[in-house]
Amino acid sequence: MQVDYINPFIESLMNVFQTMLKCKPQRGKICLHHERVSKHSISGVIGLSGRAKGTVVLSLSEEVALKAASAMLRIEVTKVNEEVIDAVGELTNILAGGAKADLEQYQLSVSLPNVVIGGGHEIHFPHEVTPIHVPFETDWGPLSIEVGFVVVAEAVEV
Amino acid sequence: MQVDYINPFIESLMNVFQTMLKCKPQRGKICLHHERVSKHSISGVIGLSGRAKGTVVLSLSEEVALKAASAMLRIEVTKVNEEVIDAVGELTNILAGGAKADLEQYQLSVSLPNVVIGGGHEIHFPHEVTPIHVPFETDWGPLSIEVGFVVVAEAVEV
Repeated sequence: MQVDYINPFIESLMNVFQTMLKCKPQRGKICLHHERVSKHSISGVIGLSGRAKGTVVLSLSEEVALKAASAMLRIEVTKVNEEVIDAVGELTNILAGGAKADLEQYQLSVSLPNVVIGGGHEIHFPHEVTPIHVPFETDWGPLSIEVGFVVVAEAVEV
Repeated sequence: MQVDYINPFIESLMNVFQTMLKCKPQRGKICLHHERVSKHSISGVIGLSGRAKGTVVLSLSEEVALKAASAMLRIEVTKVNEEVIDAVGELTNILAGGAKADLEQYQLSVSLPNVVIGGGHEIHFPHEVTPIHVPFETDWGPLSIEVGFVVVAEAVEV
């Protein structure tokens, strides 16, 4: 199973949090998941397509979502409102966009970011896809990314 | 606001249900939504990208999901298990694929279908996107589709 594709997403996450949000995540143990992916209460979801198809899920605890939105909006936000949801969508978009640039050989384009909320939600992948789960710890609390990725055509040389 | 793009999704939904599942949906009133989209407990979600970006959400009541999965799997399924979740993802994929063929001018490709479950989940769109919501009634119960769609480059003539 090809798992190299996860590195650009990890680097992009680290980069977005450190440079944009001034928050340094510590990466936990990477693991493979079968289907179930949501780990925290707010999930940004974005699709990828091109010579590969995929989904990126950025899953944040409420605390991390509020702190990240506060850093992006430059005002303190204390409850999950439309601005916070939009900020999480935008973070997911930037995360996927950053990784895409390092996966040029797959000529990926991204879809619209959606944000799923609701305490017990679960986001499932098709059974033939084994997403890779990467947890992170930050001073704000935990977060994770989950990436499912399937190559559909030969990558082009870049 | 351009809303014609919704018709291929409506036709694709009718087509998939009638020909594949032998179930005839009755379309309800189309409406514009701001952000919140999940209407039922199981949602198939798939991204679109190309000369437009979008997301298609197929939202099913548990009853409809079970009946649809039973029709697809040719065995009666009575609880939401992995096979049902996979069937809903596959339905979402077929729905988006059918619509894509009628939206050739946008050169769309689809991402992986994901399935969101969890009673109170909500799926939000970016604030600059107003998704179109289309409810349907069937003998099995209610369902809906929600499509957010943004043109990013001029459509090509086909």
